[in-house]
Amino acid sequence: MAENLLIVHGGGPTAVLNASLYGAVKEAKKSGKLEHIYGAENGTGGVLEERFLELGNIPEEKLKLLLQTPGTAIGTSRDPIWQEDYEKMADILVKKKIKYVLFNGGNGTMDTCGKLHKTCQARNLDIRVMGIPKTTDNDIAVTDHSPGFGSAARYIAACTEELCADVRSLPIHVVVMEASGRNAGWITAASALAGEKGYGPDLIYLPERPFDEEQFIKDVEEKLKEKSGIVVVASEGLTDKEGKPVVKPVFKTERATYFGDVSSHLANLVIQKLGYKARGEKPGLLGRASIGLQSPVDCQEAQLAGEKACRAALQGESGKMVAFRRVSEAPYKVEDFLVDIDEVMMYERTMPEEFINEKGNGVTQAFLDWCRPLIGEELPDMVSFNSFMGKK
Amino acid sequence: MAENLLIVHGGGPTAVLNASLYGAVKEAKKSGKLEHIYGAENGTGGVLEERFLELGNIPEEKLKLLLQTPGTAIGTSRDPIWQEDYEKMADILVKKKIKYVLFNGGNGTMDTCGKLHKTCQARNLDIRVMGIPKTTDNDIAVTDHSPGFGSAARYIAACTEELCADVRSLPIHVVVMEASGRNAGWITAASALAGEKGYGPDLIYLPERPFDEEQFIKDVEEKLKEKSGIVVVASEGLTDKEGKPVVKPVFKTERATYFGDVSSHLANLVIQKLGYKARGEKPGLLGRASIGLQSPVDCQEAQLAGEKACRAALQGESGKMVAFRRVSEAPYKVEDFLVDIDEVMMYERTMPEEFINEKGNGVTQAFLDWCRPLIGEELPDMVSFNSFMGKK
Repeated sequence: MAENLLIVHGGGPTAVLNASLYGAVKEAKKSGKLEHIYGAENGTGGVLEERFLELGNIPEEKLKLLLQTPGTAIGTSRDPIWQEDYEKMADILVKKKIKYVLFNGGNGTMDTCGKLHKTCQARNLDIRVMGIPKTTDNDIAVTDHSPGFGSAARYIAACTEELCADVRSLPIHVVVMEASGRNAGWITAASALAGEKGYGPDLIYLPERPFDEEQFIKDVEEKLKEKSGIVVVASEGLTDKEGKPVVKPVFKTERATYFGDVSSHLANLVIQKLGYKARGEKPGLLGRASIGLQSPVDCQEAQLAGEKACRAALQGESGKMVAFRRVSEAPYKVEDFLVDIDEVMMYERTMPEEFINEKGNGVTQAFLDWCRPLIGEELPDMVSFNSFMGKK
Repeated sequence: MAENLLIVHGGGPTAVLNASLYGAVKEAKKSGKLEHIYGAENGTGGVLEERFLELGNIPEEKLKLLLQTPGTAIGTSRDPIWQEDYEKMADILVKKKIKYVLFNGGNGTMDTCGKLHKTCQARNLDIRVMGIPKTTDNDIAVTDHSPGFGSAARYIAACTEELCADVRSLPIHVVVMEASGRNAGWITAASALAGEKGYGPDLIYLPERPFDEEQFIKDVEEKLKEKSGIVVVASEGLTDKEGKPVVKPVFKTERATYFGDVSSHLANLVIQKLGYKARGEKPGLLGRASIGLQSPVDCQEAQLAGEKACRAALQGESGKMVAFRRVSEAPYKVEDFLVDIDEVMMYERTMPEEFINEKGNGVTQAFLDWCRPLIGEELPDMVSFNSFMGKK
């Protein structure tokens, strides 16, 4: 009997989402037991509308470009899914003889993955549903880290090093760079890796700690006593001690509330309260789309996660997600394992206490040691401005 | 008699400003006729305060790191210079036995360069003052292009390609990326090079043409009929038909007026007028600091400009700037020449008519052909989303 496999993408892309797709398709082809390898066009919406792309006969040469293409080559969706949708999805899977479904996504997608698994189980269908972790924000539980994060971390670390080299050499100047990650500070924190070469950010503000505008102004003033060019890295998700976003909503539509940028908000505060020149930068989506700053480790692990999820499904596993466990930090070594999808569904993992410094405006050595191997090769060497200037 | 040389940096850095410094120092060392090779600490301010850094004895290994260090290794300044400052500067040069002065900078710095030359001439001092062109904005006159621009162009083109790959694969979504360059659209225009691989920006708005908000909304609406993910590249310097910045001032201080970001302003317009999801990105200074996206051609030419200015000064030239003339487009070939500093002082070169399309929202083939060689090697190949999805 013919057996088919379906791959579904959910949520925002990463620099290596397509690398997981590559790994999954490669493994599926290798198995030799599948008639069709489908990709759902634009995520769950494509499943419900039976828009399936044939991925099994794409030539290897073209397939391999997935490793260096950001975004998602089969599209994605963010639509909410209702219980009747799961029933409908199950009917479609049966009709299309799809026995294996791989969901590649973050917390929300793992929720979908788990619910489809349960729906199939309740109806006694022999359909295996597996999850591939994917997030730049690194907020998926249980796994040591998720594919997508290493590249986002390399991006912010490299950009921070470069930005610091630029800004340090200027007359008095404060630059606030906004980092993504919403409620989880992992990406913001990764900017500290820049400091290991001498050009680190001066201040880091994580969403895990309440943000105090007065303290921020004091912190900046203090730093400006030591040097003229200050770089602040701030999370887009900063909230005050009441848990309200530090940036007021710009306006609301029926669907959503829109906030201004944290970067320009904090830069404006510096100008208004201290009278110094300041500007905000916000690379935003560029941080998840950069191929030049893709982490080679991340790209490999993303492929591996795709392969493993596919293999596990073919071997009979269902309702689980591929995860990584760190075996050793130096040399860096991880092993993969399967975790029950129940343990990760809709859970949001933020930075643990031991990774945040006491003042709440920086990271600990433990974080640096944990994060360093994930960004791949070392950041480029640079002339240290101070050493060139004959200073300490 | 001992002869010394002084290098002075002015204005904002580029990804290859330090490469010109490297070229100048290397050439100065090679000449064998200089006792001291000085760098002015923090630009003209450092000259006036006699803060001179000894660059002649920095080991080659360290010096070479300049090629991959953004910012300015000897600092820079943006202070205004008065006539009495030039007299004072001349006195200091005489006292310090500095016979050669190289100014590395943009239009403002070339003005300083020219005025110091004239002051020395008027006083019959045998001091040679030469200019090295430097600007990301490409707004220096006479020369085909200036060191710094090629790297800024490569940055925006590569980021636009990546951003488009990401955004095209999403459900309806409009992303506005802000490009620097103030009144000159060169950098904004360079984003169009991304399109040569199939992932180009959908709309480009240059500061050379008045920006019409209503037309912008119509343009976006039109594009959204063809595809779901739209990327707009807009110059930070957009003005309306009365010449007023399209973004209102956020507030004013004694020293300056601060405007909001064009990117978030236009994204907000899309949300409010069309109700679609939209966001603004603003890499800002990252675009002039990226070493990963430094253009190899630009880096070579920056070194050459430093070398040539140094050599010309040592050979007796003064009051001139190194410039490039394009000899051939394919294969790309330029030759350098010297231009009277009077011809470039404070002149701001914007995009010529033949490089802007008729509608004023894109560039011409002539621009692409002119710009392509400056960004160096080709942008990476990517899977085309449409081809992967089985579409045209």
